[in-house]
Amino acid sequence: MADNRILLAHGSGGKLSHELVKEFFLPVFDNPILNRLDDRAEVEVAGVKLAYTTDSFVVNPLFFEGGDIGKLAVCGTVNDLAMGGAEPLFLSVGFIIEEGFSLDMLRDIVTSMKKTADEAGVKIVCGDTKVVEKGSADQIFINTSGIGAVPEGVCISGDLAKPGDKVIINGFIGDHGIAVMAKRQGLSFKDRIASDCAPLNGLVKKMMEVSKDIHVLRDPTRGGVATTLNEIAAQSSVGIVLNESALPVREEVQAACEILGFDPLYVANEGKLLALVPAEIADRVVDAMKHHPYGREAAIIGEITADHPGKVVLATGIGGRRIVDMLVGEQLPRIC
Amino acid sequence: MADNRILLAHGSGGKLSHELVKEFFLPVFDNPILNRLDDRAEVEVAGVKLAYTTDSFVVNPLFFEGGDIGKLAVCGTVNDLAMGGAEPLFLSVGFIIEEGFSLDMLRDIVTSMKKTADEAGVKIVCGDTKVVEKGSADQIFINTSGIGAVPEGVCISGDLAKPGDKVIINGFIGDHGIAVMAKRQGLSFKDRIASDCAPLNGLVKKMMEVSKDIHVLRDPTRGGVATTLNEIAAQSSVGIVLNESALPVREEVQAACEILGFDPLYVANEGKLLALVPAEIADRVVDAMKHHPYGREAAIIGEITADHPGKVVLATGIGGRRIVDMLVGEQLPRIC
Repeated sequence: MADNRILLAHGSGGKLSHELVKEFFLPVFDNPILNRLDDRAEVEVAGVKLAYTTDSFVVNPLFFEGGDIGKLAVCGTVNDLAMGGAEPLFLSVGFIIEEGFSLDMLRDIVTSMKKTADEAGVKIVCGDTKVVEKGSADQIFINTSGIGAVPEGVCISGDLAKPGDKVIINGFIGDHGIAVMAKRQGLSFKDRIASDCAPLNGLVKKMMEVSKDIHVLRDPTRGGVATTLNEIAAQSSVGIVLNESALPVREEVQAACEILGFDPLYVANEGKLLALVPAEIADRVVDAMKHHPYGREAAIIGEITADHPGKVVLATGIGGRRIVDMLVGEQLPRIC
Repeated sequence: MADNRILLAHGSGGKLSHELVKEFFLPVFDNPILNRLDDRAEVEVAGVKLAYTTDSFVVNPLFFEGGDIGKLAVCGTVNDLAMGGAEPLFLSVGFIIEEGFSLDMLRDIVTSMKKTADEAGVKIVCGDTKVVEKGSADQIFINTSGIGAVPEGVCISGDLAKPGDKVIINGFIGDHGIAVMAKRQGLSFKDRIASDCAPLNGLVKKMMEVSKDIHVLRDPTRGGVATTLNEIAAQSSVGIVLNESALPVREEVQAACEILGFDPLYVANEGKLLALVPAEIADRVVDAMKHHPYGREAAIIGEITADHPGKVVLATGIGGRRIVDMLVGEQLPRIC
């Protein structure tokens, strides 16, 4: 943080974001719950285990192929809860709106939130609205927080990956980032690319019916699959080997990435999860996922090793290996 | 909402805010918990009663006499929980930061949040940071949400006021709004006016030690005492008579209000609560409050009547009576 100013990259979800959290927020707020660095906190009230999380959404543009800021604001928080194996129950919503914003657009956003909340089975139970002068915010920002119930016997965390675990993903990567970028830049592709934005709690429930012995679940949003796997490798002190040829990437997303100069591994997803599970249950988990609408293209894409702890390595199609680092700098500002 | 655009007054906490909530959010999000319209939701998870609330903070300037946006962001949410008689336990925090914002200022804000959280006895357990391009937000916005435990036998809500109840306030009104206004406008008064910004859960605990039979608790923030009492009058279908001569207003705040053209009844507070309690316990509650640092100037300022339900009436010093409406329009944008 050399120049003592907040940079766009501090919000990227990548390296600078992690530095900000580790060197800046954690030392001040210091407590064991926050220090765990999962996407949600696990807290106990009167003996009941709760999952608790928050996210703000500043996506630009507000509406894009496959979603909008409202859908995103519900899915993002529902998914953070689901990534702990928790059953999402209640959401709060805080709007910060620029003076002059269209009430029709607000109605569309709010209606989209409600529809998504219904799909996920959560209730929006409290809210707040602030309005700032024209020019003091860009249209609308939405914060949601969420509470979930953690079922008995479930213990899922980024620090629980074990050598031998398989890495599973539930489908194509990079769709969300490219859909938002395309809308923002006015690009059109022969095949329209839609965001994968979706609530994943139903899919997680299906997976847990196979086995509760899931070690890690995480949704690769900002910073993409590469950044999320680096986080897990660091938290669990394990190595991860990714099999490049197994990575599900749509042809049109791959093509768009080549034109735009992106690597799909770093592009944001909003309806994807990475699951790290013991090898012996991996195939059954994948099979169960394939029977769920949000898991049809589920695949095993890599495995956990005791070698090179803290590092993610890509085994390329042509037999090479290269290190996959966290996202450095900012790739796609305001992607969520 | 004639012109189909969001106005500053939609965020005032007054009439247009209420219209937005009632005509716009409630019909879409529709559920009995949200519909109750208290400052927090009461929800149940596995048989445990929780209070849950959220607020965003966009105050301008960020630092003012007696507080800053960080202190405000903790107090506001802690107080919303405390106004249900709940014990505040956990907070989430979401930052939206403008590119280029000073890390030193961020550190001051975060440190202030931690100090206030410690005073209130709450833990900040989860968070999120988004950064937007220069010009897309005004410095920094903070959202907090909070979870509290509702003790057995406590039932406090805006719809429980009963004729005969006394209206109690814990001290001087209008300090926060005037402190922020003074800083924003570069005004200086002979006696410096400091915001009353404070976490009130300790005070509420003291009050509940006297009796759990408190009917309504609410903190008169945006829109001030006048707007909050109007909300209660409407929710409980009762009338409220305020005794003008009993209202605690600092001389310097009164003077500033006269210069600026404000009525202290409409000016925001951030460390005040209104309590509606049965007449027979009112004096004892006030007495207990006076023994707490945030209740030294506690006073009975009015009472609930069966007459003129839904209306708040001010009994003036000279024997007259006038109706006190909700805040109409916007008085002090970005006061919290």
